[in-house]
Amino acid sequence: MHAGEGEVQTRLSAQEISDFLDGVFPGAMDHFTIEEVRPMYARVRMLFSEFRLRPGGTISGPSLMTLADTGLWVALLAMIGREPLSVTSHLDIDFLRKPAPADVVAETTLHKIGKRLAVGDVIMYSAGENVPCARASVTYAIPSVRLDPPVE
Amino acid sequence: MHAGEGEVQTRLSAQEISDFLDGVFPGAMDHFTIEEVRPMYARVRMLFSEFRLRPGGTISGPSLMTLADTGLWVALLAMIGREPLSVTSHLDIDFLRKPAPADVVAETTLHKIGKRLAVGDVIMYSAGENVPCARASVTYAIPSVRLDPPVE
Amino acid sequence: MHAGEGEVQTRLSAQEISDFLDGVFPGAMDHFTIEEVRPMYARVRMLFSEFRLRPGGTISGPSLMTLADTGLWVALLAMIGREPLSVTSHLDIDFLRKPAPADVVAETTLHKIGKRLAVGDVIMYSAGENVPCARASVTYAIPSVRLDPPVE
Amino acid sequence: MHAGEGEVQTRLSAQEISDFLDGVFPGAMDHFTIEEVRPMYARVRMLFSEFRLRPGGTISGPSLMTLADTGLWVALLAMIGREPLSVTSHLDIDFLRKPAPADVVAETTLHKIGKRLAVGDVIMYSAGENVPCARASVTYAIPSVRLDPPVE
Repeated sequence: MHAGEGEVQTRLSAQEISDFLDGVFPGAMDHFTIEEVRPMYARVRMLFSEFRLRPGGTISGPSLMTLADTGLWVALLAMIGREPLSVTSHLDIDFLRKPAPADVVAETTLHKIGKRLAVGDVIMYSAGENVPCARASVTYAIPSVRLDPPVE
Repeated sequence: MHAGEGEVQTRLSAQEISDFLDGVFPGAMDHFTIEEVRPMYARVRMLFSEFRLRPGGTISGPSLMTLADTGLWVALLAMIGREPLSVTSHLDIDFLRKPAPADVVAETTLHKIGKRLAVGDVIMYSAGENVPCARASVTYAIPSVRLDPPVE
Repeated sequence: MHAGEGEVQTRLSAQEISDFLDGVFPGAMDHFTIEEVRPMYARVRMLFSEFRLRPGGTISGPSLMTLADTGLWVALLAMIGREPLSVTSHLDIDFLRKPAPADVVAETTLHKIGKRLAVGDVIMYSAGENVPCARASVTYAIPSVRLDPPVE
Repeated sequence: MHAGEGEVQTRLSAQEISDFLDGVFPGAMDHFTIEEVRPMYARVRMLFSEFRLRPGGTISGPSLMTLADTGLWVALLAMIGREPLSVTSHLDIDFLRKPAPADVVAETTLHKIGKRLAVGDVIMYSAGENVPCARASVTYAIPSVRLDPPVE
């Protein structure tokens, strides 16, 4: 938002994205905090809730999938602005280690925002851990957007 | 269950699997019906609930991922019996068409039950539709099991 | 090609696709035979060659990936006609069993031909086997096409 | 190889891995250079060859898949030592941009080396570019190994 001339920058701040998502999905951000956005990057925290637990005290797989999907969307919105029409077209996830009954932090790196598709990787960590509990890659189908300067 | 000599068969019926899952995850089967199990195959229905809707009136992505994961697990339990220690290690899903606000039916085909991994495909349809709303493939890490006759 | 009114049909026959691919990639069809195309389906055989072997006498992974990619492309061309501009955007593959040093047959089912993406599953069998050696799903980015009647 | 006490380190150097792979697959390293290995990381260069080109002058998809597979294997061998029995069980790849007719460099990050599976991400760049032409994630099935200290 405050970058030098010609530099790639975000269109929305973390707070602006959070407000936008809460408008589109009321209550959605009760469970997520956007900790940081940078060009082509976002860090999103999924807050611990009892309803995310599975027997054995680990965070459920669908919760991690939701986090991966959200993390990518946040990174994308930071770049393309308030655009509700983007939809997930593909998600794949590897479950690596049992996540602790705690917050989970997702670090998303966008690799491409093309004319039709945006693709990125998401690495997820239980709060305080330095080895990931899951990795995902996610593709969004996006409406035509103009980035200036372009990132493709 | 009632197959000829040497024929591949299921170890559990649809009802037995449903009872087992409800024991492990109380309430889980409030939202799912196991319609059919055959060797290396299961058909599972996710019952419509308001909480699965997204703005626009479509079933949410995480709901479809949960259905894919459940469908594969049901097909696997039918073959290996009451084995709570299997865990999803990989899931990938393509969202193909907006699912209607209705039940979603998942048809799972198992391709392999190996010594360590089970792999299968899941095709999902909005109830009454004949083109799929999503496809998924899912891998479970499984404890060592003996199938007789083996399917690998 | 010769279907009833309003029925989904292929635009190209197996022979027409083979001729087209050989024109675009001279020599490509020395190693592949298109055995059958039907609406949203293709069966393609990868002919055995020594250069596909890995130590241990199995068909190499990259060969199976090439087969999956080819199988999907054949099924797609059957539907949309001579369209060289389609490109693979995503491929995922699970290696299930060691493929024998023999032909490998790929059965492709297309799930969707949308305005921008085509998605399908590919199941691969060593010739004569009835359990698969690999499964794949493949997405192609396609130019805008008009299907009549539409398949989406 | 020369790390402090208790520090995670590689078991093999880039040269040792290259020699090992050339022994297992004679000639394999004619087309690849291992530029760097670090704990849980490898950078591998696929050397340009005419046979990798597709019409239009881009590097073929199967070549990039082979590179992703090789990159992960190199990163894994660095950690577990000369272990020929590891095999790819899953690979997924997104093709992001047309790769130039040039070398392609793959940066692999391993996320987990478990008792049975190793999982990592591979980001690929045309030589000299700073945006990736492809991303992949790859899973290897591995024999039981002991890492000291363990990485899991």
